[in-house]
Amino acid sequence: MGEQAGFGDRLAAQVAATSPLCAGLDPSPALLERWGLPDGPHGLEVMGRALIEAVGGVAAAIKPQVAFFERHGAAGIAALELVIEEAHRAGLMVVADAKRGDIDSTMAAYGSAWLDASSPLCVDALTVVAYLGLGAMEAVVEQATLAGRGLFVVVASSNPEGRSIQEAVTAGGDSVEASLLSELARRNGDEIEQLGRSVGSLGAVVGATRQAGRLDLPSLNGPFLVPGVGAQGATPRDVGELFEGCMPGTVLVNASRSILAAGPSVSALATAASELAGELTRSVP
Amino acid sequence: MGEQAGFGDRLAAQVAATSPLCAGLDPSPALLERWGLPDGPHGLEVMGRALIEAVGGVAAAIKPQVAFFERHGAAGIAALELVIEEAHRAGLMVVADAKRGDIDSTMAAYGSAWLDASSPLCVDALTVVAYLGLGAMEAVVEQATLAGRGLFVVVASSNPEGRSIQEAVTAGGDSVEASLLSELARRNGDEIEQLGRSVGSLGAVVGATRQAGRLDLPSLNGPFLVPGVGAQGATPRDVGELFEGCMPGTVLVNASRSILAAGPSVSALATAASELAGELTRSVP
Repeated sequence: MGEQAGFGDRLAAQVAATSPLCAGLDPSPALLERWGLPDGPHGLEVMGRALIEAVGGVAAAIKPQVAFFERHGAAGIAALELVIEEAHRAGLMVVADAKRGDIDSTMAAYGSAWLDASSPLCVDALTVVAYLGLGAMEAVVEQATLAGRGLFVVVASSNPEGRSIQEAVTAGGDSVEASLLSELARRNGDEIEQLGRSVGSLGAVVGATRQAGRLDLPSLNGPFLVPGVGAQGATPRDVGELFEGCMPGTVLVNASRSILAAGPSVSALATAASELAGELTRSVP
Repeated sequence: MGEQAGFGDRLAAQVAATSPLCAGLDPSPALLERWGLPDGPHGLEVMGRALIEAVGGVAAAIKPQVAFFERHGAAGIAALELVIEEAHRAGLMVVADAKRGDIDSTMAAYGSAWLDASSPLCVDALTVVAYLGLGAMEAVVEQATLAGRGLFVVVASSNPEGRSIQEAVTAGGDSVEASLLSELARRNGDEIEQLGRSVGSLGAVVGATRQAGRLDLPSLNGPFLVPGVGAQGATPRDVGELFEGCMPGTVLVNASRSILAAGPSVSALATAASELAGELTRSVP
């Protein structure tokens, strides 16, 4: 396929063509019951197909929460494979919310699982956790960057229990979250320069419920995945203020429960998604 | 089943009956090739069965590295289900090295996947990462504790890239790793008191390659999972020194490559495992 576009650039084009909305697919037992679906692989697949039908062309991406598929073992993962395929067919990008994180050859194996075109689980981007150090993920970072796929590293989560670790102070004097953000920014800068891309491929997960201004977000020069909107309390306007000055099309805003609660009717899901997508398009860079 | 024994107590009994050895099952592409096995679900299963046959009665547990199964999508996870079943049949405990970590209902879904008796992936203990805060895992901690299963929280990893985050200083003045350890110790203390157990169920992953003495390890009153022995450079004697003063049967020492490199011959694997198990029994509390 000749020159491979980078994930950051692909995402920006996709957001421009649709919206900053990422539709979270969180098929929890409670939600399956509310939809009248069985708590099993078939239920997962039905919910996934309905969401995809409702948000195709409206959302930039869907974000399956892998834990809810893993709950059903191999059969659940098989349902996830089908959902990923169907989402790609509908023109949606897919972010696997798996928060994987390990070192060396183990991390490379997660890269093969989620970012290699030959894998049935291959997605556009994967969420990862860097408690073992970003430097230990070198192989996956390179793999993603070259293949036009992305990683979203959890930097600042939307839940209060994460503050203690994320705000701890490293030897360099920065907080853990700030030092992760600047390490990602440095790598994105290298990618932009060396591969002639406009936006880097290494993203950050930054919760919309955080106080703005603590982190220099525009310095990332890469994409953000933003949980915390809707059921978790933040508004599209809050997101717009928090990410002011970031590059266009780099802020992907996730909403899960606030959309899925409108189901199982596909048209009701589509209406909920369209309304939120419109608000986000007006508010977010 | 009446009173359920806790994971810490079950592990201590198992170590006393076998050894402190945990045989890591890391079916990497390189190792499959070396064994003359295909890089696919069948190869994973064959390697798993050989290891189980070799270490049953000798090791306390096996530790499948989930990433190497996830590489093959649903079919790889199906192979892992078979390996788990076979290991239990051979009297081995199983620690799933998945390093999962999330919050609230998502974390509870990982708990259902790995620690619920009705799941095909149910194991004795799961490794988890707490970048989003240990407090956000409350539901899984409780689930594991009551069900006689365990969690191993990554506290101090064996790789150098993890130092920056793990040694960062929290608002309370402790390092991230020390504060995680004391939070685990507090919960283990509660479990021991309230449920009348001798050892708690909340474990810590502490790399054997770390300098001893930085953390107050005996204070955990729970199990340790210790990578870093063998191919990664630490010796059984190093482990013995590092964990001096810890409760008997609480130190589970993982070796992966140094055993698996002896395969595919089951008797050669058994010899390698027995030698290491003997050394560990002499050196480790």
